[in-house]
Amino acid sequence: MQQIPAAAATGFLMTDQYQLTMAQLYFREDLHRTPAQFEYFFRSYPDYDSHQAGYCIFAGLGPLLDWLQRTRCQERDLACLRSQTGPAGERVFGDDFLHWLAAEGHFGAVSIRGLQEGRVMHPEAPVLVVRGPLAVCQILETPLLNHLNYPSLIATKAARVQASARGGSVLEFGMRRGPGAAVNAGARAALIGGADFTSNVGASHWVGLPPRGTHAHSMVQAFMGLGADELTAFRAFAAAYPDNCLLLVDTVDTLGSGLPNAIRVFEELRAKGHRPAGIRLDSGDLAYLAIQAARELDAAGFPDCKIVLSNQLDELVITQILAQIEEEAADHGVDPAALVGRLVYGVGTSLITSRGHAALDGVYKLTAIARGDGDWQPAIKISETAAKTLNPGDKGLWRLYDRRGKANADLVGLADEDPGQCESLVLHHPADAQVQRRLDCEQVGEVEDLLVDHVVDGDRRTGTEGIDALRERRRADLDRLDPGVRRLVNPHVYHVSLTDALWRQKQDLVRRMRAEHGLGDADP
Amino acid sequence: MQQIPAAAATGFLMTDQYQLTMAQLYFREDLHRTPAQFEYFFRSYPDYDSHQAGYCIFAGLGPLLDWLQRTRCQERDLACLRSQTGPAGERVFGDDFLHWLAAEGHFGAVSIRGLQEGRVMHPEAPVLVVRGPLAVCQILETPLLNHLNYPSLIATKAARVQASARGGSVLEFGMRRGPGAAVNAGARAALIGGADFTSNVGASHWVGLPPRGTHAHSMVQAFMGLGADELTAFRAFAAAYPDNCLLLVDTVDTLGSGLPNAIRVFEELRAKGHRPAGIRLDSGDLAYLAIQAARELDAAGFPDCKIVLSNQLDELVITQILAQIEEEAADHGVDPAALVGRLVYGVGTSLITSRGHAALDGVYKLTAIARGDGDWQPAIKISETAAKTLNPGDKGLWRLYDRRGKANADLVGLADEDPGQCESLVLHHPADAQVQRRLDCEQVGEVEDLLVDHVVDGDRRTGTEGIDALRERRRADLDRLDPGVRRLVNPHVYHVSLTDALWRQKQDLVRRMRAEHGLGDADP
Repeated sequence: MQQIPAAAATGFLMTDQYQLTMAQLYFREDLHRTPAQFEYFFRSYPDYDSHQAGYCIFAGLGPLLDWLQRTRCQERDLACLRSQTGPAGERVFGDDFLHWLAAEGHFGAVSIRGLQEGRVMHPEAPVLVVRGPLAVCQILETPLLNHLNYPSLIATKAARVQASARGGSVLEFGMRRGPGAAVNAGARAALIGGADFTSNVGASHWVGLPPRGTHAHSMVQAFMGLGADELTAFRAFAAAYPDNCLLLVDTVDTLGSGLPNAIRVFEELRAKGHRPAGIRLDSGDLAYLAIQAARELDAAGFPDCKIVLSNQLDELVITQILAQIEEEAADHGVDPAALVGRLVYGVGTSLITSRGHAALDGVYKLTAIARGDGDWQPAIKISETAAKTLNPGDKGLWRLYDRRGKANADLVGLADEDPGQCESLVLHHPADAQVQRRLDCEQVGEVEDLLVDHVVDGDRRTGTEGIDALRERRRADLDRLDPGVRRLVNPHVYHVSLTDALWRQKQDLVRRMRAEHGLGDADP
Repeated sequence: MQQIPAAAATGFLMTDQYQLTMAQLYFREDLHRTPAQFEYFFRSYPDYDSHQAGYCIFAGLGPLLDWLQRTRCQERDLACLRSQTGPAGERVFGDDFLHWLAAEGHFGAVSIRGLQEGRVMHPEAPVLVVRGPLAVCQILETPLLNHLNYPSLIATKAARVQASARGGSVLEFGMRRGPGAAVNAGARAALIGGADFTSNVGASHWVGLPPRGTHAHSMVQAFMGLGADELTAFRAFAAAYPDNCLLLVDTVDTLGSGLPNAIRVFEELRAKGHRPAGIRLDSGDLAYLAIQAARELDAAGFPDCKIVLSNQLDELVITQILAQIEEEAADHGVDPAALVGRLVYGVGTSLITSRGHAALDGVYKLTAIARGDGDWQPAIKISETAAKTLNPGDKGLWRLYDRRGKANADLVGLADEDPGQCESLVLHHPADAQVQRRLDCEQVGEVEDLLVDHVVDGDRRTGTEGIDALRERRRADLDRLDPGVRRLVNPHVYHVSLTDALWRQKQDLVRRMRAEHGLGDADP
């Protein structure tokens, strides 16, 4: 069987085998060019066991669109597929199909409409609607999910960590224990979701933000091994980085050695006209040590020195540390608000792996297929209930804001509806026929259309967006979320509802499909 | 700040910022070429909360060694570093340091000794010992950990899943929800650890194993949307893949439609001289449905047809399914052993994300540094206890087998020891001074030296190993583990011990280092 180098495995062959075998089947049945529609959405918020997300942040779209633009089936890929044999020794992929792949194995006939990257998103609502030739859209399932699920998971975690930090900077530190090559996409997602900077040098230069870092224990250990001491190591660091001197103080003894040595070096820097940057605490009781460090730094006249905390931090650990500081700092003569205001958080493994919930359950489902010329038919999984059945055809997604400007609900409807023009809206629970509510439009401050055209027939309409624009979009969306929905533990449930028109059309479709296939009515 | 495309972020800049700032500090202090020794090891087995690993599988070494060989600091990387500025607007990296990086920013002076890829490994024992110029070895920390931690985590999970499957094939299906570009390294690791095949086409052609797959619900849905039915879809699949016809039977109704339709198509295939491959169950009570499917397939004369199970499987779910089959199959007239023998497991998200424990805590620590010419000095973190202090200098790692050929303990000692020649061995608990035991060498069947030279002064000594060799090595090691250590829940604790000579030397070193730095005795 043909082998390829690792780098070649991220091109057109970055898909599941069954996507290609199905594509060949469609080709043989002359269905490969049939217009089809798939939807990307996720089913549930990450649940970290002791805490749950009440919203997600959509990330990964830009790199996906870049991948679609540059990827096509190349001769190297064809050689691999040509070399595959089945159990009876037969070729898995025929020359007829490979010939077609050589010509049309790319994404130039695909259209993608959906949310913008960086936006808040909720379950069971369309995130992306993909249209194109059936075989091509089928092959696209795997790379699309692969490019979106992990970044959205990490952006969501980053937003939570940032929320816990109460304005303190969050640094992404996870690449040493994170998932291999995905740490770059993970760092980018963390930066979109809420991390201020990352220590990942390559990812920083990819997205265009300066990397951040301090130093490791090994630096102090190296000097000690050579017969010198911690103070000598700190002085060497200060000499190299006089205007960015941030010292790790727990290699020998945090309060007995590291902190006094750091202050001594800071005083030497100050005498030369430099402003020391701060210290980092990486072990022990971080709340207690932060209070002691703040007291000593204040006493030495360094109230602006940052205190960077690291070591297994996540949103709950940070919340606990801050609660302890609020409770205890004053007893040590330290103003808790001032201390909280100077803290910086280095968050590693927990962020880059989304500790507690390691995968977003985003799916990509065939929702419709065109019989003849544009006669779109629903593609439903009959074993599912009517409520879980996705709606075919053009769909709209709107976000309703109340008079305070807070997002109230996401509304899924038919594309030709205009919820902004209604006098009142009937909102259906997506899964429970018994649950609906009527919203008087007087209560609605704004109706925002959430879906935009990203790609039309292979032509990219939304350009590459810079990290700042994506962060600003996330920030604006989070500002408009109710604080109860943003709560880290047991958040208030945000409503995703169906319009009355969509609800009725879906009921009709399911009845018709079940009748067509000789099945009885679905369970109510 | 200089920006780079995503692909360029996986080269020399695939490191943490502080590695580079420390490297520059070493350069400025003229310590950058000082010979240094770092060790890669992990601290604890993955703990999946309700269950724990009793061993790990070492994976990721081959790709790491490939990366080391091909990666060096290029002009593109230098341009990035040149563009970085600090808080006072100053350049972070000076031309002097960048000039050195341009010349010596590669891994041609590094030596690596350690375990072979695919072997069973245990905590607190050296996995790799890295030697080379201090600055280069420091920069290497991040890419080394990034290349090893995630694959070893996934190989370990795969070994557990395979153990739960009692001989049934395991297919890796995780790329749709797995961590972005890491799914290729993850698939390779899964294949080393215990998965038989992966659905990941690119990764399959990278490692040289055929990809596997069936079809998705969308195929049946597409036919139904076009006015046809499940049977038509199955027939189309059988026509395209007559010798590899594996049908997913739960799109409409597993027992009412999918299974009878599959059997009908299988009968048609048989009439034409083909052997149908099997069915896949992806929802519902998989144990119950597998029993029913086996009964129907047996009755129709297809006792060899495989039954592929998928949907949120992991080692505990598989264990439960098999227990239920053992208990219930006979009541339905199905031989449980025959059914277990025809099962295949498609394991997705849980495997590729190591559900329950998403990161291996592998670390890379400076253990020694050479004063002058070859006078190796320990580089210790004095705040740690003597037991956690790593030993400098050349070290050995041996695996002791008992008379039955089962691995009994891993023994860390001095390189010039020869535990195979002793009359009796004193084994020290690595962290508890009170715990030691004496092993009569009559009880020892074999002493195996575990560390080999992978790279000597940049010269690679162990070539690229094929996937079959790695799998065979893992298989042989697992065979020699005690079944109690392999147990999925609450495994027996495998002993990692220190030799008496190493234990005594370490005590002396710590006392000397503490005295040198004016510190009292460490806690006992």
